[in-house]
Amino acid sequence: MNRLLETFENYLKSNLPVSKTFHPHFEDALSLMLDAGGKRFRPMLLLSVVNSKNSLLIKSALPVALGLEMLHTYSLVHDDLPAMDDATLRRGFETLHKKYDEVTAILVGDALNTEAFNKIANAPLSSDVKIECIKVLSSDGGIDGMIIGQAIDCFFENQKLELSQLEFLHIHKTAKLIAGSLKMGAIIANYDLAIQEKLYNFGIDIGLLFQIQDDILDETQSSLEAGKTTHNDEAKNSFVNLLGLDGAINAANELALKCENSLISLDKDLYDSLNNLLIKYINRHK
Amino acid sequence: MNRLLETFENYLKSNLPVSKTFHPHFEDALSLMLDAGGKRFRPMLLLSVVNSKNSLLIKSALPVALGLEMLHTYSLVHDDLPAMDDATLRRGFETLHKKYDEVTAILVGDALNTEAFNKIANAPLSSDVKIECIKVLSSDGGIDGMIIGQAIDCFFENQKLELSQLEFLHIHKTAKLIAGSLKMGAIIANYDLAIQEKLYNFGIDIGLLFQIQDDILDETQSSLEAGKTTHNDEAKNSFVNLLGLDGAINAANELALKCENSLISLDKDLYDSLNNLLIKYINRHK
Repeated sequence: MNRLLETFENYLKSNLPVSKTFHPHFEDALSLMLDAGGKRFRPMLLLSVVNSKNSLLIKSALPVALGLEMLHTYSLVHDDLPAMDDATLRRGFETLHKKYDEVTAILVGDALNTEAFNKIANAPLSSDVKIECIKVLSSDGGIDGMIIGQAIDCFFENQKLELSQLEFLHIHKTAKLIAGSLKMGAIIANYDLAIQEKLYNFGIDIGLLFQIQDDILDETQSSLEAGKTTHNDEAKNSFVNLLGLDGAINAANELALKCENSLISLDKDLYDSLNNLLIKYINRHK
Repeated sequence: MNRLLETFENYLKSNLPVSKTFHPHFEDALSLMLDAGGKRFRPMLLLSVVNSKNSLLIKSALPVALGLEMLHTYSLVHDDLPAMDDATLRRGFETLHKKYDEVTAILVGDALNTEAFNKIANAPLSSDVKIECIKVLSSDGGIDGMIIGQAIDCFFENQKLELSQLEFLHIHKTAKLIAGSLKMGAIIANYDLAIQEKLYNFGIDIGLLFQIQDDILDETQSSLEAGKTTHNDEAKNSFVNLLGLDGAINAANELALKCENSLISLDKDLYDSLNNLLIKYINRHK
């Protein structure tokens, strides 16, 4: 495992949320999905940006990275609820509402959302830096980002969207939190505002690229290759259904090139740090 | 209406959360329960403490008071969900999952939880003060407070608790956020740590007193007097069922006396400000 990922995993496992009471399973439920893994993509983006400037800051950035992972994890827990995806598996484990009950899943999600801000507020960083991080996380992870994206995704599940609406959906549902992860890293590392903004815009492109790639791979891969159900309903709002397969591949190629150019335009340390993390994703649709 | 409450209501109505998109109802749903009213008890506690020290600080404290009300409101929205109370009415309006659907209610709750921290992070106060407020809200409104209280309340609904467990439940579910409201006011007003702690402990007593009073009034009032269903199930975990009616009244009397003594021991400005808000509640079980 990459050294930075190992550092994060070790920190996470030593800092799982604690809630020792006479409730028979709440504490276990609270840490189950966090502990279960996942790619840790968002915390790794944040830590990679910090690492590119000053590796001594990683230790202070870890609570912010964990807060970010908590906020992402709560969104998965709530997306899996019966009223949304009614999923049975997540990160290789039974979803919380299946293993325990719906009340537990709702409250664990609520708890991780709130605790994300508690982790950041208690990080060993200046109050100014922590407030800027909290602004980013609560905006990109809230009504200006992830939540309105998810609301639109659910509401328009069986209604055809226009291309601009589909882009709006995915920029908000996914790309903004990815962009925010890079920006929080830049805030902690004390990169100037121009670089913060550049990284944020890069993150929006990366997030959108991933979604177009997902739609392409859903069309071109067998379920066996993808490790999940592919060839979903044709009525689904997807870039492939809206643009055709060739059109979607063209869009992904264009965005991948834009992302590569953005990466190359960064200073060397940032380029090395992020390229290392992203290289395996940028052209995965080809 | 009291001047301070009017100030808060006006601020709230001018600062309802905005989310202008092509989603047909998300923005309306987002502000419906906030706008619908309620006693605004928690923001009034916060603002009363601020007002006792420096009324010029009220304007800067309003975003924190609104964040607090948002967090409280999200908890009501989620408590009303089908998996919890499955309520049809709240603050005189149809609950969100009845008026719209469950997805909307879950996501509006999530959004208000996150937005609470965004409001505080953007308040015109020093970063140090905002971070201290965020620590309090995310702790007393999270896994060290409200959420674990709610989880215990739901899990043990039909199982008898011991007195110490029932106290633990209500201290966490309700009293800690009330205590936190007073403490956030004290942080903003720059009261020293000893007063912050004194107000916090007073808030715990007040929150617990209110719950014991609720249980007493549920036993002694008709539904007509109380304006809601009374004489609930005998199997319910309540102070009256555990202590008997006389025992519960004795406990409430004792706690009311303790609260009065705590109030009297505060300096005059704090006493005047809080007594004004609390006087009508402290002996309402008599």
